[in-house]
Amino acid sequence: MKFTEDSLIEFLKGEFKAKKTVIGIGDDCAIIPSNGKYELITTDALVEGIHFLKETISPEKLGFKSITVNVSDIAAKGGIPEYAFLTLSLPKMVEDIWIKNFILGVKSACERYSLQLVGGDTVGSKNSIFISITLTGSAKKVKLRNEAKFGDVICVTNFLGDSLAGLKVLELGLGPRYEKLVEAYSAPNVYPEQGQWLAKQASVHAMMDVSDGLDSDLRKLTAASHSGAIIDIGKLPLSSSLLKAAKAINWHSPSIAVTGGEDYCLLCTVEEKQFSKLQRAFQRKFSSPLYPIGHITDKKISYEENGIPAVLNIKSYRHF
Amino acid sequence: MKFTEDSLIEFLKGEFKAKKTVIGIGDDCAIIPSNGKYELITTDALVEGIHFLKETISPEKLGFKSITVNVSDIAAKGGIPEYAFLTLSLPKMVEDIWIKNFILGVKSACERYSLQLVGGDTVGSKNSIFISITLTGSAKKVKLRNEAKFGDVICVTNFLGDSLAGLKVLELGLGPRYEKLVEAYSAPNVYPEQGQWLAKQASVHAMMDVSDGLDSDLRKLTAASHSGAIIDIGKLPLSSSLLKAAKAINWHSPSIAVTGGEDYCLLCTVEEKQFSKLQRAFQRKFSSPLYPIGHITDKKISYEENGIPAVLNIKSYRHF
Repeated sequence: MKFTEDSLIEFLKGEFKAKKTVIGIGDDCAIIPSNGKYELITTDALVEGIHFLKETISPEKLGFKSITVNVSDIAAKGGIPEYAFLTLSLPKMVEDIWIKNFILGVKSACERYSLQLVGGDTVGSKNSIFISITLTGSAKKVKLRNEAKFGDVICVTNFLGDSLAGLKVLELGLGPRYEKLVEAYSAPNVYPEQGQWLAKQASVHAMMDVSDGLDSDLRKLTAASHSGAIIDIGKLPLSSSLLKAAKAINWHSPSIAVTGGEDYCLLCTVEEKQFSKLQRAFQRKFSSPLYPIGHITDKKISYEENGIPAVLNIKSYRHF
Repeated sequence: MKFTEDSLIEFLKGEFKAKKTVIGIGDDCAIIPSNGKYELITTDALVEGIHFLKETISPEKLGFKSITVNVSDIAAKGGIPEYAFLTLSLPKMVEDIWIKNFILGVKSACERYSLQLVGGDTVGSKNSIFISITLTGSAKKVKLRNEAKFGDVICVTNFLGDSLAGLKVLELGLGPRYEKLVEAYSAPNVYPEQGQWLAKQASVHAMMDVSDGLDSDLRKLTAASHSGAIIDIGKLPLSSSLLKAAKAINWHSPSIAVTGGEDYCLLCTVEEKQFSKLQRAFQRKFSSPLYPIGHITDKKISYEENGIPAVLNIKSYRHF
C-alpha cells in the first residue's frame, strides 16, 4: 500500500484523536471553543512544481493567492480571519526581486482581508520553493462538514471550473485569450462575508469551501455527514468565459466544473423547506445568487441531467 | 544585494508592522493579548538537505524533534504549549514506513508535552521533504527579547554546544563513540517548566531560547534590547561528553559552545542584585543549575577569559 493524501489523513486522524471540545483533523480548520466563541486555525502549503510553476504565476499573485486560499478555509467555517503566519523555504537561486514581490502580494492580501501578519519562519531549501501559511480566525457561530441532512438542497456561491480552465488555457499557451479564466486561477475570489452570514442561518446545515473540486469536496462533505448526493449538472453555475473556452477547445464544460479545484466558492447544504427564503435573503444581501445544484440523499454521489444519469469525464480532467 | 535570513526578516518587519497590542515578527513567538492572558503562536520549518538528512536521523526522532523545537519557542516566552498543526510535503519516493514512523515520533512528542495535534496539511513535493509545524500556547506572564537591562547577569539553563558537536561527530562517522552528543542533536531537551517559572520571576528581564547558537542568539537579544554583552568563556557550561570529544578531535570547545545551534536551552538576563537568590531558587525547584555566563553591557558583544579578550573561531564551526 502507498499512502494517498486521503489515506494519510485517515492515518493521522486515527493517531491523533481530538478531544470532544476540539474539532480537529478533517474539517477545513481546527475549531477550538474559547470564552463563548470559537478560535479557528488553518494551515495550507503551496509547493513549487506541485501547486504552482514560477513561469505561470507572478510572485505578487502567488503571494496574494497564498493568503487567499487560507482565508477561504476560515470563510468556510463562518469565521473572521485575524492573524497570519508565513513560512518561506527558498532555494538560493531565487532572486531578491521575486521574494520582494511575493511578500508585497502577501501584504496586499493581508490588507484586502484586514489581516495582520505577525510571524513565520524563513529558511533555505535545496531545490523548490515551499510556502506554508497559517491563519487564525474567530467565529461566534460555525458550520461543519458533517451536519448535512437528508433532503437538504446543495448549493454553491459562485461559478465552478473557471480556475481549472484557467490553469488549462495557461498550459495550452492560450492565456491571453481567456483572461477571466486565468484570473480565476491566479487571483481567485473568496467569500468570508458570505461564510459569516451563512454560518448564522439556522437553515444552513453543513458548509465547506470548494478547494479540491466539487466532486472531491462533495465526497468529503457527504462522507463526514454519512450521506450521499445527487447533482443536476444542468444547474451547475458555469461562467460565459468557461462556456466560450469549452466550445473552442472541445471541453465538456460540466466535467470541468465538477472536477474543478481551487474554485474557492462556498458549498453548503440547506434545509429544503427554507431554501427559497434563504436564497432570496442571500441575493438581497450580496447582490449575487446562491446556486442550488442538487440534493443530499442516502445513496452514493450521482450526477443527472433532466432526470437521466449523466456521464462525466472527471478523471480525464483531473490535474494532479 | 542578496537577502540573508536576517535581512529578509528585517524586510518583513518593515512591511508588516504589528499593532501595538501584538508582539509580532522578530521574537520567538507571536504574542497576542487575550482576556487577561497571552496567546502564543510559533511556526518552525525543517527542510531536508538544509535542516536534516534522512541518512543521519531516524524518522521517529525527526518527528519528535519537529515538535520539540516548537515547544522550545513557546517555553522561551514562558508559555504552556497547547495545540499543534503539522504540514508535511512529501516527494513520491518517500516510503510509507518512513511517514508512519515520522508521525509516531510526532505523536510521542505530543504526548510528552501534553499537546493536541488538531490540524495541518499533507501535500506532495518534487524532491525534498518539507516539514512545517505551528504550535499554539498560552501564558499569564511572558518575557520578551527586548527587555535586557544594563548590568543584568546573562545565564543559560543547560550545556551549550552538544548538539553541534553531535552533528559533527555524525558527519565524521564517529556517532557510536559519542552517543550523548548525538542524542543532544537528534533528541534535544527543551524546558517549558523552567520557562514558565522564569517568566513569573520579576528579576528576569529578557528571555529567549538558544536555537541558532549562543553568539547568534545573543546578538538578537542585545539588538532587540539596544545593549551589548560580555561573555566569560571560562563560565560556559560544557558537558563532559563535549570536552572528551573536543580533546580527541582537536576542537576548541568554547568555540563549539558559542557557535552551537539547536541547543534549545533557555537564555535569560537577570537583575544582578537578585541573581544569587534566583539561582538558589532555580536549583531548589529544578535540581539543576542556572549557569551565569556574562553580563549585559552598553558595548558590542565581546568574549573574555580571566579578564583577557578571548579569541574564538565562530565562523569555522558554523554549519550552514
